[in-house]
Amino acid sequence: MPGCFGFEVLARHGAARLGRLWTAHGEVETPVFMPVGTQGTVKALLPEQVRAAGHGIILANTYHLLLRPGPEVVQAHGGLHRMMGWDGAILTDSGGFQVYSLASLRQVTEKGVTFRSHIDGSLHELTPERAVAVQEALGSDIAMVLDVCPPSTAKRSELERAVETSTAWAGRCLAARSRPDQAMFAIVQGGLDLSLRTRHARALRQMPFDGFAIGGLSVGEPPAQMYPVAEATAAMLPQDRPRYLMGVGMPTDLVHCVMGGVDMFDCVFPTRAARNGLLITSEGRLVIKHARHRMDLSPPDPACDCPLCSRFSRAYLRHLFMAGEILAAVLATIHNLHFYARLMGEVRRAIRDGTIAELAARIDAVHARQGGEED
Amino acid sequence: MPGCFGFEVLARHGAARLGRLWTAHGEVETPVFMPVGTQGTVKALLPEQVRAAGHGIILANTYHLLLRPGPEVVQAHGGLHRMMGWDGAILTDSGGFQVYSLASLRQVTEKGVTFRSHIDGSLHELTPERAVAVQEALGSDIAMVLDVCPPSTAKRSELERAVETSTAWAGRCLAARSRPDQAMFAIVQGGLDLSLRTRHARALRQMPFDGFAIGGLSVGEPPAQMYPVAEATAAMLPQDRPRYLMGVGMPTDLVHCVMGGVDMFDCVFPTRAARNGLLITSEGRLVIKHARHRMDLSPPDPACDCPLCSRFSRAYLRHLFMAGEILAAVLATIHNLHFYARLMGEVRRAIRDGTIAELAARIDAVHARQGGEED
Repeated sequence: MPGCFGFEVLARHGAARLGRLWTAHGEVETPVFMPVGTQGTVKALLPEQVRAAGHGIILANTYHLLLRPGPEVVQAHGGLHRMMGWDGAILTDSGGFQVYSLASLRQVTEKGVTFRSHIDGSLHELTPERAVAVQEALGSDIAMVLDVCPPSTAKRSELERAVETSTAWAGRCLAARSRPDQAMFAIVQGGLDLSLRTRHARALRQMPFDGFAIGGLSVGEPPAQMYPVAEATAAMLPQDRPRYLMGVGMPTDLVHCVMGGVDMFDCVFPTRAARNGLLITSEGRLVIKHARHRMDLSPPDPACDCPLCSRFSRAYLRHLFMAGEILAAVLATIHNLHFYARLMGEVRRAIRDGTIAELAARIDAVHARQGGEED
Repeated sequence: MPGCFGFEVLARHGAARLGRLWTAHGEVETPVFMPVGTQGTVKALLPEQVRAAGHGIILANTYHLLLRPGPEVVQAHGGLHRMMGWDGAILTDSGGFQVYSLASLRQVTEKGVTFRSHIDGSLHELTPERAVAVQEALGSDIAMVLDVCPPSTAKRSELERAVETSTAWAGRCLAARSRPDQAMFAIVQGGLDLSLRTRHARALRQMPFDGFAIGGLSVGEPPAQMYPVAEATAAMLPQDRPRYLMGVGMPTDLVHCVMGGVDMFDCVFPTRAARNGLLITSEGRLVIKHARHRMDLSPPDPACDCPLCSRFSRAYLRHLFMAGEILAAVLATIHNLHFYARLMGEVRRAIRDGTIAELAARIDAVHARQGGEED
């Protein structure tokens, strides 16, 4: 697909890579963080607010859009970009992870997975072919293969079976493709077992995928276990393709996994935290509802120039949260997404400058300060 | 207060007046509709979105801001304009109406009113002096006197007592003023009883108020009873001062009461309706959640150029509402406030052109189409 999708590594520092990803909807520099727009909207924001926060690629969830409004509705609009008014790039997951984490009565066979909707209990089937067809109807720039994604803590036999099935499904996804303007990424499973990760990566890199994702991490295991697996798995993947660590995205995770060779991330954390009144700032976490902010006229993050921090006080934002105002979620989301975009900019500069270790130490110090908090 | 507040009538057609209101925070053309920003935010919108919708003056509620975040917090910001980032004009009510409609254990004495907060049950007292002091702390451009506001359906004796007490309180409010940059409006009560309205208006117009409001309407009585009372009361008020009909604001109400001589309006209807998925359009009311919009690619209002209608479909907006997305409330509010600003522009043009009766007939036809619906 020349012209529609590409990736190039521009610079390296250790395993960390500075790169560029191009899609039919614009270029993005990597490492990149993708805000999550589960149901066809990055929650609380207009598309231009996501763009103004510094983001050029978002993630949307096939599972959710399959159930509501339905792919036929999205397709009638000419795709998700046009329906939601977003002219940047979109990556869609395949729905596999949500089937595992949200749906009930899940049944995996060789053919695919059947499940009941978490919305109305209706019965649905997702096969590799259907996952591709739905993502093609959505019209995302990057589609993900359907995979079987047990938690990293699952038994070895379950992880092994997941790898076998996922490999077969990956091939079927490739075979089912019909849109030349949509890239497709494979997903490496295998939990924390490096022999399984190796087996899966070897099988998948035989196939002509445009990029490779690392799945099944950040689902319960501590960072100390996750980082080495992410790094080792990244090292198993082709040098000339982007590597995407799925669902991982605390600030410290981002820097450490970039150092392990990861190029792309997504996570609901910054947007979900924002709606709960948790701001990620240059000084660490800010629980804005705390009573100590009642009369605090300072900006939520003194080092931030986002529309929240440049114009509104902690006291006002706290008031909006205490009063249950919608604007609270809007402003906090704008800030957290600004913070993430700026952080990724610092990460990219640090790769170029060879200072990523120093950046990681600083991020660790600031963002691990309030220990015990987890995503 | 020369320079800080003023009003002039620029043109008339029948009883309808085209005018201009100026405040320390800008000029607005009248007749004007003021969106409601109860708790220091027009719900779901950033200040610039309110401005972009075409509004230059909003209303904020003293009762709500008194309880939360408290006037001392607003004052610490240098006033409500700066706290909420709104550089347009603000009118604050006195809290009287909310004490009547939201608070419990309400007790009215000659001195003032005591009540329990609807938020935490705490006991509060509002006197005319305190209502002025709180509004001065909020720093609104226009303050309202504290009044006693029974529903229009109350007994004559209760309405009469309300008029007597409100007259005394109005004088105390004037005496309590200390900010030369804040205008003060009186409120005429008297229910549907024109002799009481006359008595109250006569008493209040002896006092040097900057404007006069008509209170106690749109609280249960049908429009057919409300319009003549609003018109008759307006006629009792000074020609050279703005007239503000409180809490009234269905589209048909606006046009008819402008024809009765009213210059200013506020109502939660357009913003509240928006959050419930009810759009006010050039074709009438649009219940966006209706299943018939599931695949409807047309804009919510084909005659509207607001950020919703120019970029998004009915199907997408319906999806956002069905999925409970915050963006649904944002987009629908943007639209309804655009509609209201445009409607008031049409009203002003119609006064100038002498076509207000034709406009009223058109608005009646379109916006009464779905009979039975009420605010």
